[in-house]
Amino acid sequence: MKRRHFFQGMTAAAATAVAAPAIAQQRFEWRMVTAYPKNLPILQTGCEQLAARISDLSAGRLQIKVYSAGELVPPLQCFDAVSRGAAEMGVDSAYYAYGKTKASAFFSAIPFGMTAQEMNAWIYFGGGQELWDEAYAPFGVRAFLCGNSGAQMGGWCRKEIKSLSDIKGLKYRIPGMGGQVLEKLGATVVLLPGGELFGALQSGAVDGVEWVSPYVDYGMGFFRVAKNYYWPGFQEPCSAVQMMVSSAKFESLPKDLQQIVTVSCSVQNDLMLAEFSSRNGPVLENLVREQGVKLQQFPRDVLVALGTASGEVMQEIIETADATTRKVAQSYLKARRELLTWTQIGEQGYANARLLPFKYPK
Amino acid sequence: MKRRHFFQGMTAAAATAVAAPAIAQQRFEWRMVTAYPKNLPILQTGCEQLAARISDLSAGRLQIKVYSAGELVPPLQCFDAVSRGAAEMGVDSAYYAYGKTKASAFFSAIPFGMTAQEMNAWIYFGGGQELWDEAYAPFGVRAFLCGNSGAQMGGWCRKEIKSLSDIKGLKYRIPGMGGQVLEKLGATVVLLPGGELFGALQSGAVDGVEWVSPYVDYGMGFFRVAKNYYWPGFQEPCSAVQMMVSSAKFESLPKDLQQIVTVSCSVQNDLMLAEFSSRNGPVLENLVREQGVKLQQFPRDVLVALGTASGEVMQEIIETADATTRKVAQSYLKARRELLTWTQIGEQGYANARLLPFKYPK
Repeated sequence: MKRRHFFQGMTAAAATAVAAPAIAQQRFEWRMVTAYPKNLPILQTGCEQLAARISDLSAGRLQIKVYSAGELVPPLQCFDAVSRGAAEMGVDSAYYAYGKTKASAFFSAIPFGMTAQEMNAWIYFGGGQELWDEAYAPFGVRAFLCGNSGAQMGGWCRKEIKSLSDIKGLKYRIPGMGGQVLEKLGATVVLLPGGELFGALQSGAVDGVEWVSPYVDYGMGFFRVAKNYYWPGFQEPCSAVQMMVSSAKFESLPKDLQQIVTVSCSVQNDLMLAEFSSRNGPVLENLVREQGVKLQQFPRDVLVALGTASGEVMQEIIETADATTRKVAQSYLKARRELLTWTQIGEQGYANARLLPFKYPK
Repeated sequence: MKRRHFFQGMTAAAATAVAAPAIAQQRFEWRMVTAYPKNLPILQTGCEQLAARISDLSAGRLQIKVYSAGELVPPLQCFDAVSRGAAEMGVDSAYYAYGKTKASAFFSAIPFGMTAQEMNAWIYFGGGQELWDEAYAPFGVRAFLCGNSGAQMGGWCRKEIKSLSDIKGLKYRIPGMGGQVLEKLGATVVLLPGGELFGALQSGAVDGVEWVSPYVDYGMGFFRVAKNYYWPGFQEPCSAVQMMVSSAKFESLPKDLQQIVTVSCSVQNDLMLAEFSSRNGPVLENLVREQGVKLQQFPRDVLVALGTASGEVMQEIIETADATTRKVAQSYLKARRELLTWTQIGEQGYANARLLPFKYPK
């Protein structure tokens, strides 16, 4: 009897010991769809790193299989796929969901809007995340920052843009709100998929092409057929990357796995901007020194006109959009104003002083 | 016999089930010393968040008790404490270890050096982390980025600085390399602990005080006794926060706990810069609109002289320092040059265009 009791005790303890890890180690096998071609540096490889980090931190309890653009759903349908449950997770730019909700634009890039550092401030500490949750709630989707390209470039032009009059009739490949802005200045906006851009620029089918920033643009080879590389990238002063997750699936995770997901996205956000910055510098030096590329600043009258047109596009969104988008826009614009005040004398004021003529070791 | 076998099997399985978590769940109770007063917003509260995050992600396997400045060791002796094993972890600014190794300065702030975004690029992707490991190896310490203040301000002055001649004889509280730079311009550098700064500025014992940036400076009340708030913060274009850990202790952790530590630091790095940026904007508006503070840019001749003097201080370090410091300096200067090339037309070029006169919704 005593012996039986002992074994009973053991088995009870064993049952508990087995049961606790069994619950704790409930495993999830999820799919992540992305908008990026397989092996695309930083963006797609970053998704693979994100999935691996989540798997590592969860000791394999949350396994994520990453599908690049087109493998499971077309590149522009990641938001939809997560919304309808075809995938638990997705990574892309928020403005791809512009057709579903205009509010999405504010979580990726706005012409003459916030920089990456300002976006992080707004999303994490200025009420941005809460509004993001609210905007995506009707679609059963939540999203987190998981990277940023930082400032982008204005694009590649076959001919020099000397003044505002050169914009009229310019055939320019530029999507989204940036395209709306350029149209207001009389440009003819052309939409072409990435694979056709080089040929169109080479043949003169387009006069100019906007893509990303030096490191990514280099890989596209535009510098071989157009030598004028314009800055600043008024259309995308930053481009945030979002990690979307099905709200229901996310809520079904144990709390510790939820934290592992959010923490892993934050790490990706920290690393991606640093990687883009790091890669852009040397590539830019190479483009100028080795490839004969001319870095061209948009003329002042063009910039002022672009700024004015950007303001008009923004105003039209505010006036015509749904209530949620207006609420998001108001919060975004308030943050932009406050943060710009600081950037102006902070990072920007400093960076301008650093360019004054004085001797400094190289 | 059969029954006995069954129980044997059960107990063997139970033993395995118990043993595996027991190994996986080896617990560590560590101490983290910091350079910050208890409850100091962002900096000290960030250390508490960091410790909590590590505990959460490790399911309590790595517990860290945080000691604020002076609780276990004096605020400037965190590096030493981690090096000699008085604490497993420490958080402060790398340049507090300047007396141990001059290389440390390059991992926190350099007059007219890199911004926060550039520092992240260098540390994560430009070879900075490897050099950091090398520089601290003789002390048995490793360090990771775990935050950044972003750009700082030049400080508070009782009187206006109209030209370079106003710097001569100016009694200015400014520590470290920034102080060396100002001395070259004829200022009298004063070192005072934080608690004495307000009184010294109020009484005129000092003409000016350099501290941090708007949010933190606001809490010190300097605006009540000095109305000229100078920018840019040439002395600290960013100020990185480091999380130090005893190399031996770190190596003794299971690999998954090592990853939890590094990941948690990266999250802190992502969040802190965003929080500083977010807090600085509204405070700056308040200082100007409600408190009568005048935002003053250092005059151009002063900035050029500060830049030149900063270059000289840097050159002296390179020429007189040990081999490791020189190696670190060379890598830092190369990264600074490359990244500056990109910043100039990227974030900075964009931010300058954003200030042109055009209408934009507020």
